[in-house]
Amino acid sequence: MAVAIALSRRGRPTAAPNPNVGCLIVKSGRVVGRGWTQSGGRPHAEAVALAAAGEMASGATAYVSLEPCAHPSPRGPCCTDTLIAAGVSRVVLAAQDPDRRTDGQGIARLRAAVIEVVTGVLAAEARAVMAPWWTRQAAGRPFVTLKLATSLDGYIAMGDGSSRWITGERARAHGHLERASHQAILVGRGTLVADSPSLDVRLAGLEDRSPTKLLLTSGKAPDGWTAVASPESIDGVDSVLVEGGAGAASAFLAADRVDRLLLYRAPILIGGGKSALGDIGLTDLADAHGRWRQTDSRLLGSDRLDVYERIREG
Amino acid sequence: MAVAIALSRRGRPTAAPNPNVGCLIVKSGRVVGRGWTQSGGRPHAEAVALAAAGEMASGATAYVSLEPCAHPSPRGPCCTDTLIAAGVSRVVLAAQDPDRRTDGQGIARLRAAVIEVVTGVLAAEARAVMAPWWTRQAAGRPFVTLKLATSLDGYIAMGDGSSRWITGERARAHGHLERASHQAILVGRGTLVADSPSLDVRLAGLEDRSPTKLLLTSGKAPDGWTAVASPESIDGVDSVLVEGGAGAASAFLAADRVDRLLLYRAPILIGGGKSALGDIGLTDLADAHGRWRQTDSRLLGSDRLDVYERIREG
Ligand SMILES: NC(=O)c1ccc[n+]([C@@H]2O[C@H](COP(=O)([O-])OP(=O)(O)OC[C@H]3O[C@@H](n4cnc5c(N)ncnc54)[C@H](OP(=O)(O)O)[C@@H]3O)[C@@H](O)[C@H]2O)c1
Ligand SMILES: NC(=O)c1ccc[n+]([C@@H]2O[C@H](COP(=O)([O-])OP(=O)(O)OC[C@H]3O[C@@H](n4cnc5c(N)ncnc54)[C@H](OP(=O)(O)O)[C@@H]3O)[C@@H](O)[C@H]2O)c1
Repeated sequence: MAVAIALSRRGRPTAAPNPNVGCLIVKSGRVVGRGWTQSGGRPHAEAVALAAAGEMASGATAYVSLEPCAHPSPRGPCCTDTLIAAGVSRVVLAAQDPDRRTDGQGIARLRAAVIEVVTGVLAAEARAVMAPWWTRQAAGRPFVTLKLATSLDGYIAMGDGSSRWITGERARAHGHLERASHQAILVGRGTLVADSPSLDVRLAGLEDRSPTKLLLTSGKAPDGWTAVASPESIDGVDSVLVEGGAGAASAFLAADRVDRLLLYRAPILIGGGKSALGDIGLTDLADAHGRWRQTDSRLLGSDRLDVYERIREG
Repeated sequence: MAVAIALSRRGRPTAAPNPNVGCLIVKSGRVVGRGWTQSGGRPHAEAVALAAAGEMASGATAYVSLEPCAHPSPRGPCCTDTLIAAGVSRVVLAAQDPDRRTDGQGIARLRAAVIEVVTGVLAAEARAVMAPWWTRQAAGRPFVTLKLATSLDGYIAMGDGSSRWITGERARAHGHLERASHQAILVGRGTLVADSPSLDVRLAGLEDRSPTKLLLTSGKAPDGWTAVASPESIDGVDSVLVEGGAGAASAFLAADRVDRLLLYRAPILIGGGKSALGDIGLTDLADAHGRWRQTDSRLLGSDRLDVYERIREG
């Protein structure tokens, strides 16, 4: 299952609007097929893996990171039927599909076809890799990543506003890679006015991945931008990267709409500049604890990237 | 030599006022003696290692992280003479002693006694481990470590001043260990008034290591404290730990008197609290770069400790 989940990771930037799923077919201890959700969501991981396995799928075990879809779609066959038709004898699943149209029916139909089904294997890990899609399915809102590039003392700019550059080339390149893996990027109107950021993905081979541009404003958005009136009102995307400034970042944190923090920190001290955040609605220091868990920390050139994820119950 | 330098590390917290030196005696490929500067500076590393080696020292090679002392002292014999008397045939050194009373004379006298001397092996590494003593010898000022305990967004307290607790138990215990390895601790008058910190070393077995307490103030210091009028006017100690607050931290940074930064960062966001620093005299963002190099990063419970050292020429 760990391998199937690793495969599911490959589809994360491009599988939307479908979940990024991974599938591994194993026959007599040998891997006979591997697949992950393709660009745009089709073909599904199971279809790719079964096509690779061919006749070897008969009597094999399929490891899938999400319950196979059980509902008909105009875009292709349903994976529960494909697995049954291929003659697999056992299906091992990580997470059950929260999509109402499937939600247990895939499992029920496999079992009705006398296929052995094991569920819940590494479910949390599988869900974490599908976090953007999962958040939108289960909570009805996009998965939001907040990016902050600061000095060691937490400033995003000098007192006079100058902020080119705080972080170095490798950190900025990593930021572009993050852009490429999000469906939308958001900035506040203050940042649009101050920096007119292009928000392009400036990485060779990934230029066509430039995401939808969202503007947090109570007013209207200029051409090429979509206006967003509040952190709660984003619609139609699984994943949003909030790139600043302080007003937009604070609004998302105050609304508890941030799921992941990317903190790029340059080895410099500014001492009395522009803060990364403003008021985020905290009134008691004790409430600030237990909300964030570090999931990664690494050097990018001389800058350090620290990644934190919001700890949410359930 | 790497082993001798590792041994020298053991003396760092307690060797003052002497340099923390490490010494390894090797005869026919076998280690016959090891030593490091003992508490209070005596016996010296060479004396300890030669005593362990006994007669095996004759014809052996001595690896020493600092040139052996060549000047007489009322506190004990001079190591150059001890090495000659023990009959070592070769001495490998890392750094030359910057103390004017030795500064090359140890090497000259060893050579005059027809002992082969190799110098400059891992000199930078040896100097880094002796940084506090070295800074005072070479630059005539103490080695200063600035400690900051902040939230992810760089605040040391909420807007109303509450700061208990930002970091967790393991980070605070590490802070006490740092206290134990410094000769003096300094806070600004604002912190004394607000927190009346005891600055004790609250670690079993290390209670007697509590350092001298310095107070940064233009006024007088209360009982038990020594007043310091400016970052430039500290005298009589090799190492100082600056524990805050923002005024004191900024004064030391503005005077470029900080050699090492300890940044303890709790996984919390505060958003608009008390900043770790005030004005540190920076007028151009470009000048902030190239000053700090990260030397360590580790998790302490759920907090992260990042250590940076000031890059200085020469
Ligand atoms: N180093 C970095 O990482 C970085 C990144 C980005 C930006 N920056 C800097 O940050 C500065 C801009 O920051 P900023 O705080 O002034 O502006 P900002 O966050 O970019 O934008 C603030 C605007 O967002 C809108 N807004 C905020 N909260 C809202 C809410 N709850 N609902 C609806 N709209 C909301 C408002 O627009 P309306 O007034 O239109 O309603 C508000 O004026 C610039 O100097 C920029 O260079 C630095
Ligand atoms: N979380 C943490 O890591 C942490 C650590 C420590 C403190 N704190 C908090 O920080 C706050 C106190 O900070 P603060 O900035 O108000 O005070 P502070 O830095 O502790 O002390 C400021 C005082 O230091 C003296 N001073 C500053 N620069 C000087 C210079 N160049 N030469 C001589 N004296 C100088 C002045 O004393 P005179 O007025 O007497 O001349 C000044 O009033 C408290 O709320 C405390 O709880 C937090």
